[in-house]
Amino acid sequence: MAIEVDYRFPPGTDIAKQATVIAIGQTVGSWDDRWTSREGAFRDRLGQVVKIEENTATIAFPEQNVEGDIASLLTMIFGKYSMAGAAKVTAVRLPEDYGVRPKFGISGIREKLGVSDRPLVMAIFKPALGLSAADHGQILSEVAPAGLDVIKDDEIMADLASAPTFERLKACREVIDRARDQTGKELLYATNLTGRGNELVDKARRLVAAGANALLFNALTYGFSALEALALDPEINVPIFAHPALAGALCGAPDHGLDYSVVLGTLMARSGADAVLYPAHYGSLPFEKSQEMIIRSELVDRNVFPVPSAGIHPGVVPKALADYGDRVILNAGTGIMDHPQGAAAGVKAFFEALDKAQVGVSFRTEEIEAGPLRSALDKWGAV
Amino acid sequence: MAIEVDYRFPPGTDIAKQATVIAIGQTVGSWDDRWTSREGAFRDRLGQVVKIEENTATIAFPEQNVEGDIASLLTMIFGKYSMAGAAKVTAVRLPEDYGVRPKFGISGIREKLGVSDRPLVMAIFKPALGLSAADHGQILSEVAPAGLDVIKDDEIMADLASAPTFERLKACREVIDRARDQTGKELLYATNLTGRGNELVDKARRLVAAGANALLFNALTYGFSALEALALDPEINVPIFAHPALAGALCGAPDHGLDYSVVLGTLMARSGADAVLYPAHYGSLPFEKSQEMIIRSELVDRNVFPVPSAGIHPGVVPKALADYGDRVILNAGTGIMDHPQGAAAGVKAFFEALDKAQVGVSFRTEEIEAGPLRSALDKWGAV
Repeated sequence: MAIEVDYRFPPGTDIAKQATVIAIGQTVGSWDDRWTSREGAFRDRLGQVVKIEENTATIAFPEQNVEGDIASLLTMIFGKYSMAGAAKVTAVRLPEDYGVRPKFGISGIREKLGVSDRPLVMAIFKPALGLSAADHGQILSEVAPAGLDVIKDDEIMADLASAPTFERLKACREVIDRARDQTGKELLYATNLTGRGNELVDKARRLVAAGANALLFNALTYGFSALEALALDPEINVPIFAHPALAGALCGAPDHGLDYSVVLGTLMARSGADAVLYPAHYGSLPFEKSQEMIIRSELVDRNVFPVPSAGIHPGVVPKALADYGDRVILNAGTGIMDHPQGAAAGVKAFFEALDKAQVGVSFRTEEIEAGPLRSALDKWGAV
Repeated sequence: MAIEVDYRFPPGTDIAKQATVIAIGQTVGSWDDRWTSREGAFRDRLGQVVKIEENTATIAFPEQNVEGDIASLLTMIFGKYSMAGAAKVTAVRLPEDYGVRPKFGISGIREKLGVSDRPLVMAIFKPALGLSAADHGQILSEVAPAGLDVIKDDEIMADLASAPTFERLKACREVIDRARDQTGKELLYATNLTGRGNELVDKARRLVAAGANALLFNALTYGFSALEALALDPEINVPIFAHPALAGALCGAPDHGLDYSVVLGTLMARSGADAVLYPAHYGSLPFEKSQEMIIRSELVDRNVFPVPSAGIHPGVVPKALADYGDRVILNAGTGIMDHPQGAAAGVKAFFEALDKAQVGVSFRTEEIEAGPLRSALDKWGAV
């Protein structure tokens, strides 16, 4: 099967010409009489203009031009051409077996947690920088007994002298083990994996050996190939939560780069991530619902957990359930940590919201009885 | 020393507000009374708005927030904020020791080639796809005796069944050894390093063990951390030529992403590349001279070889000399391979152009005697 890519051009572009430039220039390039004997080989590798509709051209590339990874794919479909002028990649359709599958994904994460029938609730350590490892343990000891499913470092939290990654892990690991005795269930701590390129895989292995049961990874700032390396390593046998940091630089412009749905949906789903974070359209970052819905489909179709994020609070739960059913991780930072009655109440507010939303209770604030959810709705409202 | 970053905003932006959002949101985030005891730690990690001038805000970030690599830097300066709306990173000023230095760079590459006093001449295998390994050897056997300094794979050329990387290397290595006997000098073949993330470093080591004397690497599609991993590996003791494929997706938009000078200059110069390719402003891709001149400075200041590329032919040599002096690699694809008298004449035309330009001979076509340079000027003109 060919790899099909849609390119959208601004008004006034000679689309037929640009489509040919891509089909030829991103594959074989030109050849002359010297290479007549190779003509067959060249034709086998040329891209083909499949169709041009309105402002979009579709090019089919031979799968044999690339290596089943994200990097050679990006080089072929948009490497040099990205520098040629205004054009945006709006869709990439790949053969079923292209890329790296998640080790765990939705089903594997559910199995680890023993939770099969509801959305998961996830928190973020806040403030992002300045807390010590002990502070992390303290925060986790507040939220873990409330039944939290997942917690993650802030993506900005690197391996800093003031809160080294292995010390954060140690402090949190103790809390997780204690909480398991209380709640009877596991809690995943997605520890932020950072470091220079030469130490990432080894550090991830050591983190897992030291008790990390999940990793957070800024896939776009480190690169898709780093994510593949982690996902393909048998010793790194914990779920990887991929964070979208820097996605706006690739996806935010109207006429350049790639759609968010391509980068955070299609490509993330093919690079071994088990769960992928991205902005929710009803959250605090500007994001189109149509992009979010494509991301959801691309991820769920490959058993990757969607994690709509940024500005999530208990009031968005009915909306999230309507969009995702139970195949979603509700990921809140301040929406848990800044709950008026404290972070544990923040977690409880989410579970209360889930219970109510799943049986169809209205979220009109005045109809909700006093308690964690009511306090959250009073503070953040409902969407 | 702090890390200073310039952000340019579109007209109508409340720049003071956005600058504060960045300084706080990309570091600590907000905190409340619970964390009064940590106030000092938070303040040490907050970004500071240094100045706002016209449409640009400068933020200073504490160096202690990051890890000396590119990925944690990008996450901090533009991770989440890249998704917040229109803003472009136009400059990043780093402490002198930040990042990874090249193993070879300008001085090391010159030493390998035994060429100290002139620009280097570099060719690209063309057509990009469809040639066999034997074809590569055949092409190289044409251009090597003419004294070529460097040749590289096309960046699209992956490790394909029709021309496997190790077979291309084998075919070319034989030619390089033969040519050395003739010309008395080395020729670097920048072999394109491709593959899934988990095999890149090992494959690079095996390529070097098999005789690769340089590597080509698509740093942006694989990721900066993959480049760091290669640069920091002691067994990969050959120069790395970094290719800018995909740079347009990060840099091409007017109000989003990062300037080309940041990505292809500042960041490449801090991630271990020995030579960096990027579009020349007088070449075939749209590129601003001001961006190219910043890239040049950023690279040369760190002993990294600048390789202005795309649409390079012998007629641009006087311009390149004026811009770069002798600290430049003249990198031509079709500008060598499609020379009317063949690829060897293409190389000779560059050396003839260098000889003439260095002694100030005019490039008015009608004044150049018949020969390789004249034929090149007749075909491609002079700039």
